[in-house]
Amino acid sequence: MSDIHCPVTVDGQDVVTMAHGGGGRATARLLDSLFRPAFDNPWLERQHDGAVLDMAGAMAFTTDSYVVRPLFFPGSDIGAMAVHGTVNDLAMCGAEPQYLSAGFILEEGLPLTTLRQVIDSMASAARKAGVRIVTGDLKVVERGKADGLYINTAGVGRIVAADPVEPGQVRSGDRVLLSGDIGRHGIAVMAAREKLDLESAIESDCASIASPVLALLHEGIAVRCLRDLTRGGLASGLVEVAETAGLAARIQEADIPVREDVSAVCELLGLDPLHVANEGRFMAVVAPEDVDRALAILRCHRVSKAAVEIGRFQEGRAGQVTAESLIGGTRIVDRLSGEQLPRIC
Amino acid sequence: MSDIHCPVTVDGQDVVTMAHGGGGRATARLLDSLFRPAFDNPWLERQHDGAVLDMAGAMAFTTDSYVVRPLFFPGSDIGAMAVHGTVNDLAMCGAEPQYLSAGFILEEGLPLTTLRQVIDSMASAARKAGVRIVTGDLKVVERGKADGLYINTAGVGRIVAADPVEPGQVRSGDRVLLSGDIGRHGIAVMAAREKLDLESAIESDCASIASPVLALLHEGIAVRCLRDLTRGGLASGLVEVAETAGLAARIQEADIPVREDVSAVCELLGLDPLHVANEGRFMAVVAPEDVDRALAILRCHRVSKAAVEIGRFQEGRAGQVTAESLIGGTRIVDRLSGEQLPRIC
Repeated sequence: MSDIHCPVTVDGQDVVTMAHGGGGRATARLLDSLFRPAFDNPWLERQHDGAVLDMAGAMAFTTDSYVVRPLFFPGSDIGAMAVHGTVNDLAMCGAEPQYLSAGFILEEGLPLTTLRQVIDSMASAARKAGVRIVTGDLKVVERGKADGLYINTAGVGRIVAADPVEPGQVRSGDRVLLSGDIGRHGIAVMAAREKLDLESAIESDCASIASPVLALLHEGIAVRCLRDLTRGGLASGLVEVAETAGLAARIQEADIPVREDVSAVCELLGLDPLHVANEGRFMAVVAPEDVDRALAILRCHRVSKAAVEIGRFQEGRAGQVTAESLIGGTRIVDRLSGEQLPRIC
Repeated sequence: MSDIHCPVTVDGQDVVTMAHGGGGRATARLLDSLFRPAFDNPWLERQHDGAVLDMAGAMAFTTDSYVVRPLFFPGSDIGAMAVHGTVNDLAMCGAEPQYLSAGFILEEGLPLTTLRQVIDSMASAARKAGVRIVTGDLKVVERGKADGLYINTAGVGRIVAADPVEPGQVRSGDRVLLSGDIGRHGIAVMAAREKLDLESAIESDCASIASPVLALLHEGIAVRCLRDLTRGGLASGLVEVAETAGLAARIQEADIPVREDVSAVCELLGLDPLHVANEGRFMAVVAPEDVDRALAILRCHRVSKAAVEIGRFQEGRAGQVTAESLIGGTRIVDRLSGEQLPRIC
């Protein structure tokens, strides 16, 4: 019932205590010292239960929780992911990402230096992506009731697409563009978790993909549907869009970029790179006549500079995705039936 | 790497498995069988990464995570709380609650019947509060890495207040109205957790408070600030508003309704009812000339039928809250310094 039963330092480190979640003085101190300075903006300064924003017309609204383990891994961390993941979901709706909320569930005993690193990483990712974290929440659960910390972000953004951007818009003959090589995020997280001794470090591709998406929309490309290739990878993205669109899809495996080191680890572990999670990759389904212009636009942006066309949607059994292999054979691509890599995002 | 290492039934009960969080077939099956039917609406039917909404002008945006333990307690449960809590935060911004997101973190092994009960309770609370759950996310963590389930909701709503409703608007002389008796939620949760054998069951006050708040705004009451009295209770609400407003506050303890049974448990446990969490109570700070009309409006609504005036803001040390006792003495009311009742919300 006081600070006393909650050790505030463990092995000389300041840690999160149950009191930090109590809504009293310790909570206020943590918010004032750590969160508000990092996410510095006028909405948080008002110290209210929510943020008041000016929106006009159609907006996108999305949410994701982040439970990735470990918290830090080559190329990224849970904080940057929690920003980029939700920013990317907004972009996938054809929206300009604008405002995020952030809800933290902290485990008692989490070192405050770890929390600070995560928050600084979120703040930096938000600056890079041009979004503001305008409202938030903090809860603390007892030791053993979380895994360091979990983060939920929700986001809102202004729709900039003139036409709806969603699976239902995809038509037979539309082409599938892929923004770059796949599989790096999943393998980076798994290698960090399992302490795999890789020759070269494989870094997560975690990044905001809003900028090339907004460019496609601003340039009037007929974008039917956008899908980021997170949990379930490219395979799940293709199958889900095909199912909702009531179409089949056909892709050329040789056209799908997979880095050699990623491919080697996948082979070693019996993983299909099409199922591995990404955090900075997306597919854009566009009208056939816009393919060249769309690829040119994508290739102007760092995060999609290696964009390629990989296939098309066509009449056929709804949700059936066929991959043509290098040597001319074909195989059916399905979504994962179970869990490939748990807690990848 | 498959369903095999995840038992799908424990003691004959279907349970949550890691595969449910994999983004593949098991995830799709759970969403289709449980979540989409319960939250049934056109946004979720589109099966996209986010929802596209029509908003005009100013909107409120807020979030909260819910980690209450136990999941079910007299009068409410984590699902209803996750809806009402965020609905209430929107109302506290002077907004009409409209759309919610829902992010679930499930512990492997959670019985699916428990999950279904929570989801049905959320769906029912959303219907009652007139909001739609339009987008969501589902993660599964290993056994021992959560406590059954955690829920995050974020919400957006249309601002209906003509003037800003926030602590900075409070002026000297403004009056504090309280919407009803305090302390029931905190005591109900604690009694359930500690299996206290109370003579009468004390039920949580968990409820949506949007309806009386919207009525105050629609009727043109000069509402300066609204605050729901959750973590930290009435004391934290008063101190925080006073601090931000740069004013002192003075309240009459005799005017604050506390049920006799709640008061008895508080006394037994050495708790101050002013610090105990509520989930269906708020304070409204209004201009002095509007007090009578505001009370009449509040008393027309079931959830605030016992509304009373309890004090005022005035010049003085910023953040200093003084309570006058029944016998004429005074005491300083401060926010909690530590943790009174962990995981109350």
